[in-house]
Amino acid sequence: MTRDGQPSQPPVFDVAFRDELKQLFRWRRDVRRFRTDPVDSSLIKELISTAALSPSVGNSQPWRFVNVADPNRRAIIRENFERANASALGDFSGERAKLYATLKLDGLDKAPVQLAVFSDTQTPHGYGLGSRTMPETLAYSVVGAIQTMWLAARARGIGLGWVSILNPTELTQILKVPNTWQFIAYLCIGHPEEEHLDPELVRHGWQDRADISEFILNR
Amino acid sequence: MTRDGQPSQPPVFDVAFRDELKQLFRWRRDVRRFRTDPVDSSLIKELISTAALSPSVGNSQPWRFVNVADPNRRAIIRENFERANASALGDFSGERAKLYATLKLDGLDKAPVQLAVFSDTQTPHGYGLGSRTMPETLAYSVVGAIQTMWLAARARGIGLGWVSILNPTELTQILKVPNTWQFIAYLCIGHPEEEHLDPELVRHGWQDRADISEFILNR
Repeated sequence: MTRDGQPSQPPVFDVAFRDELKQLFRWRRDVRRFRTDPVDSSLIKELISTAALSPSVGNSQPWRFVNVADPNRRAIIRENFERANASALGDFSGERAKLYATLKLDGLDKAPVQLAVFSDTQTPHGYGLGSRTMPETLAYSVVGAIQTMWLAARARGIGLGWVSILNPTELTQILKVPNTWQFIAYLCIGHPEEEHLDPELVRHGWQDRADISEFILNR
Repeated sequence: MTRDGQPSQPPVFDVAFRDELKQLFRWRRDVRRFRTDPVDSSLIKELISTAALSPSVGNSQPWRFVNVADPNRRAIIRENFERANASALGDFSGERAKLYATLKLDGLDKAPVQLAVFSDTQTPHGYGLGSRTMPETLAYSVVGAIQTMWLAARARGIGLGWVSILNPTELTQILKVPNTWQFIAYLCIGHPEEEHLDPELVRHGWQDRADISEFILNR
């Protein structure tokens, strides 16, 4: 064992685990319909700690989590979403516009936990290693952590929805974080009202899944 | 069961699975030291299919995978890395420069499988839903898919290393992909020579892990 009580021998993951892992990947959904009962704050802290096991460029650990609990701030963010969503609807016409208007694209109305996630572009960690030619890898590190958190949450029966229909500059101002923090995602978290194997946008006729072989080239 | 033979009832993930999942998160490493024996191409295809179970903004599925097998192209990409890495070394001085020069930051020398991953900024899927205010969410969708692939690979005992010390524009040209594809990552994949619980950059004294509580704010 290592000092922190972790096994020091590499684990071997068997077929049963791998099959269950595949089920976790399949059943991870972008959840927009939440129950209002609370999620224990220690569980949220644990999910954030788990997210931090993700890779980051140069071990820069640029992820910053803002727990948005203030009802006034939540209301302002919801207005921000509604304005951005109304503008987005204006991009469509005819049947697509009608369909867009029926979609539920956020869980801001009910999600008991709401986290804004940022990338600290001036992170004091990692000395810039690995991000010189691609500074966007800092943001990418944060995204990997969000995907890890998403899976860990689903394994606990907790749903997570990523809201991107927001003005990122305004989010930084509303939440009074340093302007060197880049807004990455607004996460709604809570117990899901319902569970589905298929994505909401497939189920409601917006966009089917494509054949993966279309996306592979050889060079 | 659904038509494709998947269980249609939501799975419940028990404590034993969740503990093993946590071990997977802990033992997922950025691998740079590979054995040269091949990885079955059907396994690579399976890992890419698994990656495509990840969320994408508007179900846009912007991930594009380029399997780089041609030795000439691999050599050109390795030169690209070496130039970018020499420039990066120039940013450091004194002890940091000495330490940087000792680090192994890529597995391009031996990795039997090498995948370049792109985001199709003109993806025909998803009709732009969700990415109007944050077009970068297309790239983020690809990053989530890479993190999923990384975990699925580690569960199979396969190592993956993400090389970012490259000129992204040149990669697009070297691999002759559409210039509307944004370069996201170059992945080295293969059997790892060694397994570690701690990140390579921690082990070699570059950057320790920080306390996660530093990264959480309340608003």
